Amino acid sequence: MNLLLLQPQDFIDDQRVRLQGRRLQHLRCVHQAQTGDRLRVGLLDGLMGEGLITRLDSELAELEVQLSEPPPAKLPLSLLLALPRPKMLRRILQHCASLGVAKLILLNSYRVEKSYWQTPFLQPEVIRENLILGLEQARDTRLPQVQIEKRFKPFVEDRLPSLLDGRLGLLAHPGEYPECPRGIQQSALLAIGPEGGWIPYEVDKLIEAGLQPVQIGPRILRVETAVSSLIGRLF
Amino acid sequence: MNLLLLQPQDFIDDQRVRLQGRRLQHLRCVHQAQTGDRLRVGLLDGLMGEGLITRLDSELAELEVQLSEPPPAKLPLSLLLALPRPKMLRRILQHCASLGVAKLILLNSYRVEKSYWQTPFLQPEVIRENLILGLEQARDTRLPQVQIEKRFKPFVEDRLPSLLDGRLGLLAHPGEYPECPRGIQQSALLAIGPEGGWIPYEVDKLIEAGLQPVQIGPRILRVETAVSSLIGRLF
Repeated sequence: MNLLLLQPQDFIDDQRVRLQGRRLQHLRCVHQAQTGDRLRVGLLDGLMGEGLITRLDSELAELEVQLSEPPPAKLPLSLLLALPRPKMLRRILQHCASLGVAKLILLNSYRVEKSYWQTPFLQPEVIRENLILGLEQARDTRLPQVQIEKRFKPFVEDRLPSLLDGRLGLLAHPGEYPECPRGIQQSALLAIGPEGGWIPYEVDKLIEAGLQPVQIGPRILRVETAVSSLIGRLF
Repeated sequence: MNLLLLQPQDFIDDQRVRLQGRRLQHLRCVHQAQTGDRLRVGLLDGLMGEGLITRLDSELAELEVQLSEPPPAKLPLSLLLALPRPKMLRRILQHCASLGVAKLILLNSYRVEKSYWQTPFLQPEVIRENLILGLEQARDTRLPQVQIEKRFKPFVEDRLPSLLDGRLGLLAHPGEYPECPRGIQQSALLAIGPEGGWIPYEVDKLIEAGLQPVQIGPRILRVETAVSSLIGRLF
């Protein structure tokens, strides 16, 4: 936790917050913080600044906070991912929030196991918890948007083309395609398939919707490695 | 497992292998392979090719193999990492092998907890197992070299300068430094600190040894996210 992320309900008046639960434990056990310590804080979807710990014991922490700085810019990136398996999904939510992805779309694919859609990690409050862990890691306050699309064809045919409006659309897929670009300066949508890859029908549909297929060499990466590596390459 | 990785002791004659254990289970349960199936195989530190399954039951698998293609080129990269915490180390070993890192050096740092050096994940056979998982994922056969350096100062003073000979040496560290380069064409050594970062003394020593400090923006990434993201950016 490189930033203590506050929520509106933490405030007991304009500049004072009271914390319990996970954040209190983290301050005490990991940071080994003490009354009088100053630390970096931010308001969820708001400004960042500094907090002064005015009380810290086993029951609660109180801080006086000053919020004045904007959070870092988000990457102009929408990431379109075939729903990963649950354990990896959790980490990918954290990575995406840390890396500054603006929007994450989780899409069905032929090679996504049906059981993945049943995971508790897809519950809105669990998604939010994992995104918050990523924001706290990276020192950001703004939650990425997460959109869940359980049906491939209606999403790709009806909604994907308008999402691509004014954006560079890239489909990272192994094959005889041009190399994935580097250090782009524009807004982009990047699609990454499931373990085992999109099936040819899906590749065709994604290209038809406006994505350009690109490759990153002969190595087949796990989805979470591919996400971080491609984002590092693009921005 | 996108490549079935074979070891010399698997061979029962020049072109036939016999498998048991993890790889047998994986063929049966994950690949749901059958006699007559062909799959991609490779010899550890050797060539890749195709295997034909000639027997597959609960006790063993036999394959006839043809090995003729070279594995993909390694990245000309030595990665110098402050020893990560054990669970992350395991994943980082797999990521590094998948991404094609040629050499991984695990170094002590002030902020590396002493207990991390006791993890079973540092045992040579466990390191090797995790590297093999990464190679099988990426379709590579060549193990990255792994070097373990428990003492910061003697390594940085005595051995690091010669490792930098002819290589671009980069120290990824938050601060007012030039941006990390992209798409480099040369051999490099990249240093990434522990959670919490290198301490100023360590930064000074690493710079003195010949590393150039570079930054990747205001976001503080977890080590495993930083590894994949920086490698994607550099190569």
